[in-house]
Amino acid sequence: MTSNGPNRKAPFQLAAMAYGGDYNPEQWPEETWHEDVRLMREAGVNLVSVGIFAWAKLEPRPGVYDFAWLDRVLDLLHANGVMVDLATATASPPPWLAKLHPESLPVTADGRTLWPGSRQQYCPSSPAYREAAARLVRMMAERYKHHPALVLWHVNNEYACHVSECFCDESARHFRRWLQQRYGSLDALNAAWGTAFWSQQYADWDEIQPPRAAPTFQNPTQQLDWRRFSSDALLECYELEHAILKELTPDVPVTTNFMHAFKPLDYWKWAQYEDLVTLDMYPDPTEPDAHVYAAMNYDLIRSLGTGRPWLLMEQAPGQVNWRPHNLVKEPGIMRLWSHQALARGSDGVMFFQWRASKAGSEKFHSGMVPHGGTETRTWREVVALGQELRRIEELRPTRIHAEAAILFDWENWWALELDSKPSADLRLVGQVRSYYDRLFERNVTVDFVSPGTTLSRYRLVLVPNLYMVRDETARELERFVEAGGTLVMSFFSGIVNEHDQIWLGGYPGPFRRLLGLRVEEFAPLAPGQTNTMRMADGHQFACNLWSDIIALEGAEVLGEFGEGWYAGRPALTRHTFGRGLAYYLATRPEPAGMAWLLARACHEAGVEPAAHVPAGVEAVRRQSGTATLLYLLNHGHEPADVALESPALDLLTGQRHCGIVTLEPRGVAILRS
Amino acid sequence: MTSNGPNRKAPFQLAAMAYGGDYNPEQWPEETWHEDVRLMREAGVNLVSVGIFAWAKLEPRPGVYDFAWLDRVLDLLHANGVMVDLATATASPPPWLAKLHPESLPVTADGRTLWPGSRQQYCPSSPAYREAAARLVRMMAERYKHHPALVLWHVNNEYACHVSECFCDESARHFRRWLQQRYGSLDALNAAWGTAFWSQQYADWDEIQPPRAAPTFQNPTQQLDWRRFSSDALLECYELEHAILKELTPDVPVTTNFMHAFKPLDYWKWAQYEDLVTLDMYPDPTEPDAHVYAAMNYDLIRSLGTGRPWLLMEQAPGQVNWRPHNLVKEPGIMRLWSHQALARGSDGVMFFQWRASKAGSEKFHSGMVPHGGTETRTWREVVALGQELRRIEELRPTRIHAEAAILFDWENWWALELDSKPSADLRLVGQVRSYYDRLFERNVTVDFVSPGTTLSRYRLVLVPNLYMVRDETARELERFVEAGGTLVMSFFSGIVNEHDQIWLGGYPGPFRRLLGLRVEEFAPLAPGQTNTMRMADGHQFACNLWSDIIALEGAEVLGEFGEGWYAGRPALTRHTFGRGLAYYLATRPEPAGMAWLLARACHEAGVEPAAHVPAGVEAVRRQSGTATLLYLLNHGHEPADVALESPALDLLTGQRHCGIVTLEPRGVAILRS
Amino acid sequence: MTSNGPNRKAPFQLAAMAYGGDYNPEQWPEETWHEDVRLMREAGVNLVSVGIFAWAKLEPRPGVYDFAWLDRVLDLLHANGVMVDLATATASPPPWLAKLHPESLPVTADGRTLWPGSRQQYCPSSPAYREAAARLVRMMAERYKHHPALVLWHVNNEYACHVSECFCDESARHFRRWLQQRYGSLDALNAAWGTAFWSQQYADWDEIQPPRAAPTFQNPTQQLDWRRFSSDALLECYELEHAILKELTPDVPVTTNFMHAFKPLDYWKWAQYEDLVTLDMYPDPTEPDAHVYAAMNYDLIRSLGTGRPWLLMEQAPGQVNWRPHNLVKEPGIMRLWSHQALARGSDGVMFFQWRASKAGSEKFHSGMVPHGGTETRTWREVVALGQELRRIEELRPTRIHAEAAILFDWENWWALELDSKPSADLRLVGQVRSYYDRLFERNVTVDFVSPGTTLSRYRLVLVPNLYMVRDETARELERFVEAGGTLVMSFFSGIVNEHDQIWLGGYPGPFRRLLGLRVEEFAPLAPGQTNTMRMADGHQFACNLWSDIIALEGAEVLGEFGEGWYAGRPALTRHTFGRGLAYYLATRPEPAGMAWLLARACHEAGVEPAAHVPAGVEAVRRQSGTATLLYLLNHGHEPADVALESPALDLLTGQRHCGIVTLEPRGVAILRS
Repeated sequence: MTSNGPNRKAPFQLAAMAYGGDYNPEQWPEETWHEDVRLMREAGVNLVSVGIFAWAKLEPRPGVYDFAWLDRVLDLLHANGVMVDLATATASPPPWLAKLHPESLPVTADGRTLWPGSRQQYCPSSPAYREAAARLVRMMAERYKHHPALVLWHVNNEYACHVSECFCDESARHFRRWLQQRYGSLDALNAAWGTAFWSQQYADWDEIQPPRAAPTFQNPTQQLDWRRFSSDALLECYELEHAILKELTPDVPVTTNFMHAFKPLDYWKWAQYEDLVTLDMYPDPTEPDAHVYAAMNYDLIRSLGTGRPWLLMEQAPGQVNWRPHNLVKEPGIMRLWSHQALARGSDGVMFFQWRASKAGSEKFHSGMVPHGGTETRTWREVVALGQELRRIEELRPTRIHAEAAILFDWENWWALELDSKPSADLRLVGQVRSYYDRLFERNVTVDFVSPGTTLSRYRLVLVPNLYMVRDETARELERFVEAGGTLVMSFFSGIVNEHDQIWLGGYPGPFRRLLGLRVEEFAPLAPGQTNTMRMADGHQFACNLWSDIIALEGAEVLGEFGEGWYAGRPALTRHTFGRGLAYYLATRPEPAGMAWLLARACHEAGVEPAAHVPAGVEAVRRQSGTATLLYLLNHGHEPADVALESPALDLLTGQRHCGIVTLEPRGVAILRS
Repeated sequence: MTSNGPNRKAPFQLAAMAYGGDYNPEQWPEETWHEDVRLMREAGVNLVSVGIFAWAKLEPRPGVYDFAWLDRVLDLLHANGVMVDLATATASPPPWLAKLHPESLPVTADGRTLWPGSRQQYCPSSPAYREAAARLVRMMAERYKHHPALVLWHVNNEYACHVSECFCDESARHFRRWLQQRYGSLDALNAAWGTAFWSQQYADWDEIQPPRAAPTFQNPTQQLDWRRFSSDALLECYELEHAILKELTPDVPVTTNFMHAFKPLDYWKWAQYEDLVTLDMYPDPTEPDAHVYAAMNYDLIRSLGTGRPWLLMEQAPGQVNWRPHNLVKEPGIMRLWSHQALARGSDGVMFFQWRASKAGSEKFHSGMVPHGGTETRTWREVVALGQELRRIEELRPTRIHAEAAILFDWENWWALELDSKPSADLRLVGQVRSYYDRLFERNVTVDFVSPGTTLSRYRLVLVPNLYMVRDETARELERFVEAGGTLVMSFFSGIVNEHDQIWLGGYPGPFRRLLGLRVEEFAPLAPGQTNTMRMADGHQFACNLWSDIIALEGAEVLGEFGEGWYAGRPALTRHTFGRGLAYYLATRPEPAGMAWLLARACHEAGVEPAAHVPAGVEAVRRQSGTATLLYLLNHGHEPADVALESPALDLLTGQRHCGIVTLEPRGVAILRS
Repeated sequence: MTSNGPNRKAPFQLAAMAYGGDYNPEQWPEETWHEDVRLMREAGVNLVSVGIFAWAKLEPRPGVYDFAWLDRVLDLLHANGVMVDLATATASPPPWLAKLHPESLPVTADGRTLWPGSRQQYCPSSPAYREAAARLVRMMAERYKHHPALVLWHVNNEYACHVSECFCDESARHFRRWLQQRYGSLDALNAAWGTAFWSQQYADWDEIQPPRAAPTFQNPTQQLDWRRFSSDALLECYELEHAILKELTPDVPVTTNFMHAFKPLDYWKWAQYEDLVTLDMYPDPTEPDAHVYAAMNYDLIRSLGTGRPWLLMEQAPGQVNWRPHNLVKEPGIMRLWSHQALARGSDGVMFFQWRASKAGSEKFHSGMVPHGGTETRTWREVVALGQELRRIEELRPTRIHAEAAILFDWENWWALELDSKPSADLRLVGQVRSYYDRLFERNVTVDFVSPGTTLSRYRLVLVPNLYMVRDETARELERFVEAGGTLVMSFFSGIVNEHDQIWLGGYPGPFRRLLGLRVEEFAPLAPGQTNTMRMADGHQFACNLWSDIIALEGAEVLGEFGEGWYAGRPALTRHTFGRGLAYYLATRPEPAGMAWLLARACHEAGVEPAAHVPAGVEAVRRQSGTATLLYLLNHGHEPADVALESPALDLLTGQRHCGIVTLEPRGVAILRS
């Protein structure tokens, strides 16, 4: 590994608010390129991502390179004022790699090889792939390091989107090296994995395998380390390219496009190597709450970049091609959702892709330029948005500040969702959303934080199901509450250490003191089965999935179970700890129950919404010094009246509003007061 | 390849209306054979298919043949007046082939080998299989070419019913040779496949693979060519046998039994090599509309044989064994469904199989002679039908004539149902049935036509979802309408060319002129979601699955969408083009909507039903010169009265009817007027 | 094979009623062992199973053994009065075996290898596994043969629970040897398998394969023989260990723990080699009838041991980990279900496991000592039960006697559930339960009997769907009825012989005389479809799944079908045969119909319930000479009053009851009168 480590440079920001998309000129004859730049100018496009899948065009045979066409593309773009986010083109190797190195093809857990014919057919641990990729990246960087169009490096593409792990023999060897580094000795590994169970003790490193198909449940710590390793193996690929780019073009920022809350890659670790965190986001128009999930991802991605501006690198102008039912974005939705990304910190709006392909698997993915050309709704909306963005450059210096944070840990995610748990229905993202969605409805802005984070800058910290926790994380949560913070934690937290081994001595080991209780046993509910939470204030909420049977050790009871053999046992507790408060939720209440709880916790913590707005309206504040911009987005199907505290100017319309601003359905306002 | 090409001989017809079934004497002791021929005589059996799975008996070891038993079988059948449809016995190689040539076993897309133990365990491209098959066919033809019982060759059996494609290395090499022949150069292939997308460009033929398991969606043109190739690879197997038979027995007609609308094989191409087109049909008694699907297949098979008589080669006397729930045919159903095949052009009625097996996977498949012998309902029904058929020989010179046709193209089927489409729920056969079933209810007889067909002999042509279309097909449809024909076309037609590449310049490229409109975008609906079609005449129909957003270019609007953001946009249009009319349907209406549309189109085109009969009664006309036979089949559970235009004689009963003929439930009449 | 054959020794019984569980000290530091024995004493534990998954600890490298730690464990247990059920530790080989002998790993039907990382990763036919296992067993037996703690050998563990068959080349060779032994000649095999069907005839033993993935339905007799072979291949593994143990420790009884009605292993054959039949039972708390299925298994396991005491070797103190939803046992359930096992013949109560693991796949499986230690409900219940058991030692000499028996045959189970049947919904255990559950509700105690059993000791014999039957079994059933017995048989019985070949000449060949009828055809029903059974006495019951179309040959009609084309045909018949009665049920009635039929059959046969008790109360009698203990278990949620015929003493409370004994919800009484 030649990486020179995580970036710790000053935050990087683009020269202008970005507008554009993936541009794949290699799919089109050269005459089309000229139409492209003309239309880009018409639409206000100032940044395009070039060459993401161009490896085969750039190196049609092993070692034979052809950059001439790309030279012409970059010159043409530059001449037309379009900046270039230049891809390293390593996302999908050409077919010749598989022929030359069949062992570079990925292999599934049950031993199936994945062949060329689609994309991403490489084993992350393959030396052949890594060498070929490094060679190409070096050639690219050498050739274009001084090209005036180059403003950003786009390494690979959506790492792991199809192949997040490989079980081949090369990967097995790599896994063993990774384990040797992690554990030092087989004794340590045997202890960490608990191989005394089921006669799994290893006597030789070479006996260790990836968690390939096996007769039954596999060693959970082996599975967990496999996930850690698989994320790291791809991160090595990224670091390899990153190091070359930093060596040859130290001043050009580097990114790779992330994909929403994506389980296989520990983005906390990855984001440290990104000058600009970028995100591909494809909300599903069939889901009524698609925009809420999008908001959650925008907040997550902003948090990955520690609050710096990030960039929405891909979204669809209209429909995608890869869902079973690819619904269009109805008129106004593309604009509304673009503004949502800006509201939550994006430094521009980029699309996949510029021009809809005429061949290949994605030809029915919408493009900024549709098959039908410019006489289409999509094109009209693209041009309109491009014009609008030029009017809101003043957004860019502002930042988003949150007083509440959700603790989100990839390692806990992996561990929690391994097999052999009390209930297979406990899934982390669903649990996170049970918090996030209620806060979204209240317009409480949240950050996401990793276990290592110092929490003192927040008033309220939410901890959904932190099953796996290191001692130091538990201690930081104690410090946070002790110092006056408010904590809300869900059941099945604090159960195992980083090796997925039980914190013995009564659940939840590291949180007993903080929460003031002990969990005697877990009582999951069958699907369809419910219980009730009876609150001290008379409220009553249905709950399901899980019940902890709690013995109190200092906490007070806010709600108790209403039914069954544990009726009357605590369902929701609160513990005063130091100067703060720690809530513990022993079950999964219906949304109204979560809303009740979070309203109370926000109130006690002094956490305020960005604005008081009608239901269906999203409000986010962007701030810079004392200046505040209030972003209002109406996701509803009816006009919505928002009462203003003081007169304000709408950046989009230039209109001044007093008292009330009315948002049309799908309407947006950016108010400076 | 040694094939001497498609047959272009005079239509072949059997010497008598066929009655019989598959006969597998190798499963029984020789004394049973004598009982068999006695019972065949009792049932009126005059044709049996012999030896379909007899390879292992005929060649028990590689190169060691034993024909003596088959000699005795054929002699015995001939002596009892039973004609023989002699199988080439190549449908399932003996286990020794797999031992001698393990590479001849088929391999699935994910690399699993399919082993002996069932049947059809051969790779279609395997030289070892092909050589062994050719050797056997030559031996058979040499030995039996002068046998007086031989009236028909039965090549192989239900090609591709289990193994329609093989992904082994031999198949890969064969695929590459096929591609070389198709494209000539790699440049042409790269252009056709659009390999500029996702870095798929090939630099060497050997880099090309079958569409084996891959990380994600595979190149669609590769997938499409793979389907073309797989159909052709098996067609080569057929042609290989066909050529040997034509060489040695030029006067004996050749067939292979087809299986309903079967996706893997392009039967238009195959049927050209058949002297007699034959069909295996197993309607599912659990489906209320099983007889409608059967009718559709009978019309398709008749169309494959360009209107010549065809033969129902297999049906079940009672229940089958291979469905999860194998219901019996209730009393009268076997007779009714047999007559349905005759009504639609079959030249006889054949069963699988003569005598129910006592061992093996199909022992619970009904036979003409059940396990319980002759004291069974099945046997009684078999004997009765055999007697009845002898009374209707005059059916045989008649033919079926249709004024309406449905365009049906295997290549379009393959292309339409590849992945990455706007909606995965759009399936061709369902769409065809949305037309066919409504016409069946109206007793409008239809042909099926391939894209290459001259359409001038029809009044009405129906085009369900012709997604993929060659320019010449589009031109033929224009010529048809221009000359006065009526056309009804469904959405998502005219989208791609034969390489699955978009017809650019606005959908539906090659049909814009004909239809007088442009489709701006596709708006599929989510499952369960509906819209409405509001017709100008006040009718209103629910619709679902899909909406085209249409911009008119000359067409008139007959119906518009009722809801959502595209309410008021056209849902059904009509365009006067030349002397004809072109309807375009932008969505999938409920059945009543299709019935409304097709009633109107039939009326305008002057297409008449075969007869005006009550619901549940099927009517088909068979004609010869000026003579007409009207076939009436009552599929209902109640008696049905059919009003006659003129007095008529029922061939089955010899009764003369005036005014009204009453059909019992499951009753049949064949009326000569 | 070195086995010295089935045991035919005097029945073995433990020295005391067993209480304890699996004990895995290798997972814990040695200091924990001392806490363990202290707690064992507190809970009254007197027997533990040691070393089941200790192979890797005992032989950390090939041929390198470490017994010192086990010496210490056994000494410590013995010093604390705890007996040891010592495992042979062969259940899961250490990872080194796979490295040294990759060919010892199991392979699935579709060619996937199953790798180390979980457990049981060995091919049952592997010489490498067998040799390593035999070597270890010999070492263990030599070392501990005189250890005073050793009272029972625990061979392997839950044979086949994950890997019941292997399709590797070694298994293929083994299968061929097994077939050679079974059939002697290929001619015999070809005849038995009916290979004349589908060209499957074998010319060489080496052509035969396991039923690996194939194009379609595989030869059913091959599949059936494969199941026979796979059960036998594992039985050979067991016999191998058994023979070594019998050689070195002839006086120590041997067991292996069975798992409920487990399809892959023919436990009738296996049980002959067991000195003590032992069972692992995990009723699912999500199922309301979990206790009924448990009771069925207890009766089956008792029958496998020919009525001798058996031992509940494993149950969960609380929740398990391997279901999707692992519900707890609510308070009182563990005790109630433990008593149920005792009521039906268990000689003690054992758990998996003593101490809940802190690592590995089963860490969320409950233990007698939970993660939370002794301040838990589970521990309190464990201690209470241990104390209670000490008060009921007088149970041990008693035995259970049944007057009714259900014929249960593994080979029929296998054959019945092969593919290609009239209905795929016909499953044997469901059918057995349709009888068993109704008898359980009546508190009629039943035995299970194998086809070879002499039936004269029973009054009533129930035969659910004996599809496959040998002639001698049919004759024994005739003898039973002829001599005055009452028989109830369900449809689809007597259809095939041991080679799965049809008994020709009219169904059900070997039972026509006994039943006085002929089945003309099978008419299965589609899912959701029903018919009715109209009884002569006016009752009417819904029925589904299946209808036989019956022609009477002496039987009388008790009920007829009410609907459809076979309305009026017999649905339930009764035939007087000799001095007995043979009922035949042609369909699957709703539970009330089965209850009606079985009430009648019990009445006619003179079969009485164990006691007359309210619904929800289970009653079983244990007898010794003239002494009777009446076990009463209240599975209901309400108190239940049971009327006593005579005054009785409750062994559990020491209380004397007259007239009425009231059982609390989940209450138990053991009454001596």
